[in-house]
Amino acid sequence: MPHRRRLALTALALACLLPAMASAATPYRSPQQILDASAASDWRTPDPANLLYMDLPAGRVIIELAPQFAPRHVANIQTFAHEHFWDGTSIYRSQDNFVVQFGDADADDAAKAKPFGSAQRKLPAEFERASAGLKVSVLPDRDGWAAQTGFVDGFPVGQDPQAGKAWLAHCYGMLGAGRSNEEDSSIGAELYVVTGQSPRQLDRNITLVGRVLKGMELLSAIQRGPAPMGFYTDPKLRTPIVSIRRASDVPAAERTPIQVLRTDSKTFADTVEARRNRVDDFYKRPAGHIDLCNIPVPVR
Amino acid sequence: MPHRRRLALTALALACLLPAMASAATPYRSPQQILDASAASDWRTPDPANLLYMDLPAGRVIIELAPQFAPRHVANIQTFAHEHFWDGTSIYRSQDNFVVQFGDADADDAAKAKPFGSAQRKLPAEFERASAGLKVSVLPDRDGWAAQTGFVDGFPVGQDPQAGKAWLAHCYGMLGAGRSNEEDSSIGAELYVVTGQSPRQLDRNITLVGRVLKGMELLSAIQRGPAPMGFYTDPKLRTPIVSIRRASDVPAAERTPIQVLRTDSKTFADTVEARRNRVDDFYKRPAGHIDLCNIPVPVR
Repeated sequence: MPHRRRLALTALALACLLPAMASAATPYRSPQQILDASAASDWRTPDPANLLYMDLPAGRVIIELAPQFAPRHVANIQTFAHEHFWDGTSIYRSQDNFVVQFGDADADDAAKAKPFGSAQRKLPAEFERASAGLKVSVLPDRDGWAAQTGFVDGFPVGQDPQAGKAWLAHCYGMLGAGRSNEEDSSIGAELYVVTGQSPRQLDRNITLVGRVLKGMELLSAIQRGPAPMGFYTDPKLRTPIVSIRRASDVPAAERTPIQVLRTDSKTFADTVEARRNRVDDFYKRPAGHIDLCNIPVPVR
Repeated sequence: MPHRRRLALTALALACLLPAMASAATPYRSPQQILDASAASDWRTPDPANLLYMDLPAGRVIIELAPQFAPRHVANIQTFAHEHFWDGTSIYRSQDNFVVQFGDADADDAAKAKPFGSAQRKLPAEFERASAGLKVSVLPDRDGWAAQTGFVDGFPVGQDPQAGKAWLAHCYGMLGAGRSNEEDSSIGAELYVVTGQSPRQLDRNITLVGRVLKGMELLSAIQRGPAPMGFYTDPKLRTPIVSIRRASDVPAAERTPIQVLRTDSKTFADTVEARRNRVDDFYKRPAGHIDLCNIPVPVR
C-alpha cells in the first residue's frame, strides 16, 4: 500500500519478523507470511517445453504457454520459437493502460515480411474449451464477466458451468494472439501482453495462449506509442527482440530456474483469503472480496 | 483491440468514415462515434483552482482535484502547490502493476526534509462522505467491491445507499494521499497515482484526492523500482519534478486548454453502453457488462 517511506520500510522489516510470532499473536497471516511457510510440494516447475524466454536488451521475460486451453496456437508458437521466427523482430506497439504487441513489424509488407517457416498459416479460434477434464480452483466472489472464475495451473479463467465451457481471462500479464476481424485470423505470429486494467471484454473474443511469469516490468514500462493505439510511428522507438526461444531449446546452463505456486494448493487458497480480508495494522476496512485479476500467482 | 497492423489501420480509416454511415446501416455507434457527435454542452471546463500541472522533464501531467470528496486534503494540496512545496522533489517509487509515488524523498530525514510552509500538519481521514447532495450517475452492472458504482463529476465512485455513504474508487489514474498505519496520517504531501490493475481493496482505506486527466503515459511508463515495493535504491533513477502548480497560479498564456466529458450527460451514458455491448466487426461476443474501472472518462 502507498505510505510514507520510513513507515513503509518499517512495515517491511516487521514482515520479516512476523512469521514466527503470527501463530501465537493472531490467526491472520499476510500473503507473504503464508508463502514463507509453504512446503516444497506447493510449488511446481513448469515444463520447459511450455516456457518461452523472450530476451530483450534490458533482460529476460519468461512466459508460460497454456496448451490445455489453446493447443493449436501453442504448438504453432512453439514452432515459431524453435525456428527463430521472432529473433530480430520487435515490440512495435505500446498502448497505455492496455497492451504491448510484438512480432514482425513488416508482416503486412509482402516484400519485407518474414517467412513463417513450417508454422501453420491458418488455425481455428481457440476462445474457449470444454470444462470437462479441467480442475478449476473456483473463487468465492461474484464476477460480472463470467458465471464463475478461478485458476487452472496458474492461469486465470472464467467458466460457465451450465454451458460446460471455460476460457482464459484477460488479466494483467496475459499473452494473447492478435487477430484481425475474422475470429480464425490469428496464428500466434503477432502476440500481445496485457499491461493495463484487465480488458475482460476481450475474453472469448481472442485466443489467449499464456501468461508472463517473470519480467513484466520490462514490458509494462516501455514508452507508449502515439494515441489512440500505441503503434510507434518512429521505428526507432520499437524495442528490439533479441530472441524468443523455448526453454527446452536452450542449453541447461543458460536456463533461468523458476517455480510457480500450485493454484490447487491450500497455500494458494490461503493467500487468496488473506487478500480478500486484510487484517493488519494498515487496513481499516477489509474488503471481503477480491476480483480474479487482483490475484497474483506467486513465482519464485 | 490487438490485431495485425494493416488491419488495425484499416479499421481506423473506416472509423473515420463511419459516423456518416452509421445511422443508416446500424444503430450501433462506437464510443468514438458517439463522442464525435457530442454537443459542446456535453463538456465541462474544470475550474483552474482544482487543476494541478505536474511538470516533468518529459512533459505535463494534468490532475483534477476532488474537493467534493476530500475538501481538507484538497485545500492542503492547493496550499502545497501554491507555495511550491513539490518543485524540485521527485517521483521516488514505481511499483509494477500498482502505483507511482512522489513528493519529498527526504521527508523522513529531519535534517533534509522540506518544510511544509503554511500547510496543515494534521488532517482527518477523508475515506468516504455522505451520499446526500451527490448526484451519482449509477452504472447498471454489479460490482464485488461496492453495493453501487458510478461517476460523480468524472470521478469513479462506490456507494452504499443503505449507509448513505459514497467514496472515490481506486481506478487507473486516481490520485491518493499516502499514509502510514494511522488513518489520519496523510496530509497530501506524499501522493501516489494508480498505474496498474485497480487496487479496489484500498477503497475507504486511503484518502483519494483526484484523478489524472492527461499525461498518464508519463507516469505509467516510468522504470520500475526494485521489488517488492518499487522504491528506488539508486536516487539517480528518481524522476525529477520540475514543478507542481495550480493552473490558477499559472499565467493564462501558459495554461493547457482541457475539457472533460460530463459524466451526467446522455453522451457519456451512451459511450458506457457502447462499451458494455460492443457490436462491431471485431467483437464476436459482446460482454453485456462493464466494470467501473474499465470506463475511461473522455478528455479533450
